[in-house]
Amino acid sequence: MKFKVKDMDIASGSIHIAILHKQDAKKLDLRSGDRILVKDGKGEITCILDISESKKAVAPGRIGLFEEVLDKLGVKQGHKVSVHFTGKPESVKHIRDKLYGKKLSEKELLHIIDDITNDRLTAIEKTYFVAAGFANGWSLDEVVSMTKAMVATGQKIKFKGVTLDKHCIGGVPGNRTTMIVIPIIAAAGFTIPKTSSRAITSPAGTADTMECLAKVELSEKKIKAIVRKTKSCIVHGGSMNLAPADDKIIEVEHPLSIDAEGQLLASVMAKKNSVTANHILIDIPMGPQVKARTKKEALHLKKMFKQVGKKLNMDVQIMITDGTQPIGNGIGPLLESEDVMAVLRNNAFAPFDLREKALIMAGVLLEMTGKYRKGNGKKVAKEILISGKALKKMNEIIKAQGKQKRPVLGEHRFQVRAGKSGKIIAINNEIISKVARVAGAPEDKGAGLYLERKVGSKVKKCEVLYTIYAVNNLKLDLAKEFLQQGKGYSIK
Amino acid sequence: MKFKVKDMDIASGSIHIAILHKQDAKKLDLRSGDRILVKDGKGEITCILDISESKKAVAPGRIGLFEEVLDKLGVKQGHKVSVHFTGKPESVKHIRDKLYGKKLSEKELLHIIDDITNDRLTAIEKTYFVAAGFANGWSLDEVVSMTKAMVATGQKIKFKGVTLDKHCIGGVPGNRTTMIVIPIIAAAGFTIPKTSSRAITSPAGTADTMECLAKVELSEKKIKAIVRKTKSCIVHGGSMNLAPADDKIIEVEHPLSIDAEGQLLASVMAKKNSVTANHILIDIPMGPQVKARTKKEALHLKKMFKQVGKKLNMDVQIMITDGTQPIGNGIGPLLESEDVMAVLRNNAFAPFDLREKALIMAGVLLEMTGKYRKGNGKKVAKEILISGKALKKMNEIIKAQGKQKRPVLGEHRFQVRAGKSGKIIAINNEIISKVARVAGAPEDKGAGLYLERKVGSKVKKCEVLYTIYAVNNLKLDLAKEFLQQGKGYSIK
Repeated sequence: MKFKVKDMDIASGSIHIAILHKQDAKKLDLRSGDRILVKDGKGEITCILDISESKKAVAPGRIGLFEEVLDKLGVKQGHKVSVHFTGKPESVKHIRDKLYGKKLSEKELLHIIDDITNDRLTAIEKTYFVAAGFANGWSLDEVVSMTKAMVATGQKIKFKGVTLDKHCIGGVPGNRTTMIVIPIIAAAGFTIPKTSSRAITSPAGTADTMECLAKVELSEKKIKAIVRKTKSCIVHGGSMNLAPADDKIIEVEHPLSIDAEGQLLASVMAKKNSVTANHILIDIPMGPQVKARTKKEALHLKKMFKQVGKKLNMDVQIMITDGTQPIGNGIGPLLESEDVMAVLRNNAFAPFDLREKALIMAGVLLEMTGKYRKGNGKKVAKEILISGKALKKMNEIIKAQGKQKRPVLGEHRFQVRAGKSGKIIAINNEIISKVARVAGAPEDKGAGLYLERKVGSKVKKCEVLYTIYAVNNLKLDLAKEFLQQGKGYSIK
Repeated sequence: MKFKVKDMDIASGSIHIAILHKQDAKKLDLRSGDRILVKDGKGEITCILDISESKKAVAPGRIGLFEEVLDKLGVKQGHKVSVHFTGKPESVKHIRDKLYGKKLSEKELLHIIDDITNDRLTAIEKTYFVAAGFANGWSLDEVVSMTKAMVATGQKIKFKGVTLDKHCIGGVPGNRTTMIVIPIIAAAGFTIPKTSSRAITSPAGTADTMECLAKVELSEKKIKAIVRKTKSCIVHGGSMNLAPADDKIIEVEHPLSIDAEGQLLASVMAKKNSVTANHILIDIPMGPQVKARTKKEALHLKKMFKQVGKKLNMDVQIMITDGTQPIGNGIGPLLESEDVMAVLRNNAFAPFDLREKALIMAGVLLEMTGKYRKGNGKKVAKEILISGKALKKMNEIIKAQGKQKRPVLGEHRFQVRAGKSGKIIAINNEIISKVARVAGAPEDKGAGLYLERKVGSKVKKCEVLYTIYAVNNLKLDLAKEFLQQGKGYSIK
């Protein structure tokens, strides 16, 4: 059947969407979510169908096309196109099988991950994929297959010889150990090319924080040159398309805030495998508001990471760390970068918890190279830090990536004070993160919080707990409004 | 924050949707699928947020509202509204719990079903609900709770005393036993108010077929009067809002073609309970293209239906029937109604399989009343049919509901012929249904197929297997085009 094109003036962001009026859809026995093949004289494209209930949106005889479809097919408002039947992708059958409890093969998982990467599945189909895996669990073999599929459907950057990497599964505000560990390891002479992420639900990712000091969106060619020169880099992985399926899966995990273990394992390991890392240290924070809530959960994740690593010939070490409160004092890109630089500069006011955690991690990585005796790593890392070699290396990296102008700290400020006297017994990571985000982090690099007090210290009523920084009054007011739901501190 | 309303000129069909530009969404730390409270001076409404990626669709500072939201809030293009944070409904937490394997309480399931009924959940959230229940299974108590919740969130019609009902879980084209069973039972003096559905994926539902003879969209008051007069009715249940959650759940089951047992049990039992039926006969067809594919699956469903019935004080009997080929000869509303009337008129050419199945079912229902000896029901049913009392009762029902003008049989016809000589060993229900639908059924009442041959008979090459009827050449051509994927007959 032939239809006249209506330019919907809407972009879906990725997926190809076509809209028919409900009468036409009925004629062709098509339902919302069905696949149709839209053809003009020259080309064709598979679209996912939406149904228009009103004539105003898309009238009978017309087909509404989103921007992506118009662009790829090269048609415009008023052109005629034909619509043909086409089945669901094979991968939908595999997802159905998983829901019925079947184990999926490497080929079947590649099929699914490839279709997700290329936006061939609807949100509902992706949700069934996540839910089926979550409820029925993924076997070790399936996680390994998923990891390989994520690597295969993304870009790969090859480095030679011993290549180190570190990763934190997240959830702890201010936890910027990466930017201290990397220069220490590189200063010791080892290759450690670090691709980091931007914040998704947190007030700052390592990429956002590093961007206060240096450029982080770099081409593969540039990154290789920087690593050749400095042994390392701290760049944004997103611009490189490493294991891109991950982000597309996360889209449907958010609505229910579920942490699907299989996808977590596969995405972390795939991103490391994509940069040919062979020695990886993974930080698993444990606490009531992070992924691993209990010791049991943390130990289970540890076991799974090690097993997947073994199957992929990757040497994986795990550190289970304190995830009950923020690390460092600053929350937000600029404030966190200041904490990092204070540690590298050996400033007296540098946050002790951040420094200590980074040194332990660097120590483990040094021992993983086989060049240092077990138990000796941290001592070596500390020497490198105190000697100033780590700071020197960081400046080299910044110069190689391209120095950035320092952002301005938010000039609109508000001090949050203790409602009573006592001892601070807990800090709620979720509330602290939310306040910093509403204040403008990470988009406003100079926005965020500075924590004056951490767990264990005593406060008097009305003493400052933390300061909120925002770049305008509107955002400061939004953050203050949010404070009515809680300040994030428990005092007893 | 304040936003200027943009009338999107789109109706979602039910759910309340508001769109913000991605910059504004980031400012407020909101994501696609989040709930926001949209307020103007007078009222407020909770909406589900979509994000606009382009300024063309919704520019920064504006809020795009769908028709349902504009109507309910009473605002227009250009008005100012404010946007406020609001959390996810409680039911999302319960869905999450189910995904984690928890059993849900009656109160929690009521919460979920109520939010589904009132369009408060997104498609992704509903998908997690279906998938979680499917993968982790529903306990008997949960199915009973879900049934009660579906009854509570819909309309209820009360009838007095012994009230019979029948139901078929579907999948077999032409299976119109209802329209024969109801007049037989009513002629025997029992109350049997039948609410039927329209076709969703089949070429005709009982409501579509009955509509060729009488009006089926009637008010509750009218239905009660008809049942008082004739002891029965055959009307469309959809117009009465019985257990409305069911249709909203089915929307997210379609994309993966899954048959979620828990929802099936709950929706059938809820619809029967909503009309206060206390003796129910359920037909479970068994075959490769219907819900119960094997004897084991059929027996499991039987057990579950009986157990749920027991918990709800409903007397439930189950018949496991042949679902391997269509019942009767006509497929499509008019052609099926002709089959039914031929049986009621005791015509020589009436399809034997349809007559036989209807008599067996009527017999079981008569025995369930306790007025007839076990094994004697079918004999009584046959006497009522042969005597013409069933036909007389059917004419009474038609008159009471309001006689309809007979639709015209599709004048555009095509005969599908055997590709080789041999014995017919199978007829594919799915293909036969699809051909009839593409030819125009059920919207075109006179469209469909007439089967000349059934399983077991011998054909010679080029003899007619069935005739396709359509109301115009376009639809006939679409049906012919579809035939290239298979005629639906296996000949050996």
